[in-house]
Amino acid sequence: MTTYDPSQPIGIFDSGIGGLTIAKPIINSMPSEKIIYFGDTAHLPYGDKSAAAIQAYSIKIVQMLLQKKCKLILIACNSASAAAYDLIKEYVNHDALIVNVIDPVIEFIKQHYAHKHIGVIGTKQTIHSNIYKKKIEELNLDITLHSHATPLLAKAIEDGFANSIITDALLHEYLSQPALQQIDALILGCTHYPIVKKKIAAFYKGKIDLIDPSEIVTNHVKNILEKENLINKKNIGSTHFYVSDYTLSFMEETRFFMNRNVTLEHYPLWVRED
Amino acid sequence: MTTYDPSQPIGIFDSGIGGLTIAKPIINSMPSEKIIYFGDTAHLPYGDKSAAAIQAYSIKIVQMLLQKKCKLILIACNSASAAAYDLIKEYVNHDALIVNVIDPVIEFIKQHYAHKHIGVIGTKQTIHSNIYKKKIEELNLDITLHSHATPLLAKAIEDGFANSIITDALLHEYLSQPALQQIDALILGCTHYPIVKKKIAAFYKGKIDLIDPSEIVTNHVKNILEKENLINKKNIGSTHFYVSDYTLSFMEETRFFMNRNVTLEHYPLWVRED
Repeated sequence: MTTYDPSQPIGIFDSGIGGLTIAKPIINSMPSEKIIYFGDTAHLPYGDKSAAAIQAYSIKIVQMLLQKKCKLILIACNSASAAAYDLIKEYVNHDALIVNVIDPVIEFIKQHYAHKHIGVIGTKQTIHSNIYKKKIEELNLDITLHSHATPLLAKAIEDGFANSIITDALLHEYLSQPALQQIDALILGCTHYPIVKKKIAAFYKGKIDLIDPSEIVTNHVKNILEKENLINKKNIGSTHFYVSDYTLSFMEETRFFMNRNVTLEHYPLWVRED
Repeated sequence: MTTYDPSQPIGIFDSGIGGLTIAKPIINSMPSEKIIYFGDTAHLPYGDKSAAAIQAYSIKIVQMLLQKKCKLILIACNSASAAAYDLIKEYVNHDALIVNVIDPVIEFIKQHYAHKHIGVIGTKQTIHSNIYKKKIEELNLDITLHSHATPLLAKAIEDGFANSIITDALLHEYLSQPALQQIDALILGCTHYPIVKKKIAAFYKGKIDLIDPSEIVTNHVKNILEKENLINKKNIGSTHFYVSDYTLSFMEETRFFMNRNVTLEHYPLWVRED
């Protein structure tokens, strides 16, 4: 088994900017860590793609993060966590620790929501994979899960409508589903959704809990690194952003999102030769 | 120079289902033709990708359509027409006739809209390329163009919101831009938009012309084939759909769209090897 060095970087990947909702609290709560963020903007969004396609993209990204000697790789995307976690775990073996954004949430639900009704919203890929349903049934805690795909929501957030009436109309359309009325808590099953958490809370008039993976996953990553003695003690924190396709609007969105200047480095996943 | 045979197929490509708004009238008006449709669902949507990425995908697709011996290749996507037409034309040379969805519209505007104010809506890629602006300025006909990117609209249509209040809210948000108020006509600059043509007409209370590329481009393709004596006289019409990524929801959307059963064949653009 490989032993890791605390000075190695943490790798985080997503199809685009959604994963930044998790990268940001990780950077803030572990400022000494070297962070490598990969946004697969050539294939964004993952939510409408097949499991096979997402698996292929994820393996290509993980190969790159392993080359960069990451000690831990976080799959900061629900669609990729649903489609590719088992494959990545098998592929990486002991070369890095692998964390997805679903299992820490399932653990949280296990601790707090026995006998309750829970809703989950996410992309088509995430919802149709039935991964939350399977994992919650395995808990055997009499938890009833109500799933609903909300595919336009992530794109609306990416397009700058997070504070717009467009998002109000979309949330009304999606969350008015009968299945999502009698729930005690709602899992925000896509890394974009914490950005519109207040609007979702307003729809439910604050009467249900919102389960926000960005906080839960950040704590989980920190706990794992502490447990494995892999917290970086030297103050060498840095952040490096890579994208598989470079566009100006994506750079602007990333800047807006991180609330500071960022440089994106173009790193194509496939070499394009004719 | 290669001479073509009328029995060769017509190739049509788009990032997904948008191009079907043009494929459908082409199939209906030229039922004896063999049609090959390629939807690049692995990279959908094109509208948020860079010009370089769209060029690379387009060349890969064109290589495939040339292998299938297409006599004419229609770039049934505004983003790809804006980013890749010149490259494809150069690359294909005399091996097939190449048609894009922008030039026939510009020709139509030349004939009908001298001295007028025209609006154009489309994806980020199409609008930021400034291609409509450049081509209309070259006409030198005192036409004023007002451009506005409406990136969420295509995805909303793909997600089944074409008849929903979500689309009403989106159109209100996008079309209320001051620049789009004093226009005589609006170019539907994305192949998805004809699907919500009635809603756009309702927003403008029928007071402006809507320039629908699906009709204009269909007529243009027919005229070219007639002029070149390439209309298929034998009744051997057929349609074959290829996609670079296969998902069930995409198949359902295509079926809904074409109003009949369709079979999609999976054809990856890049062989995925580690």
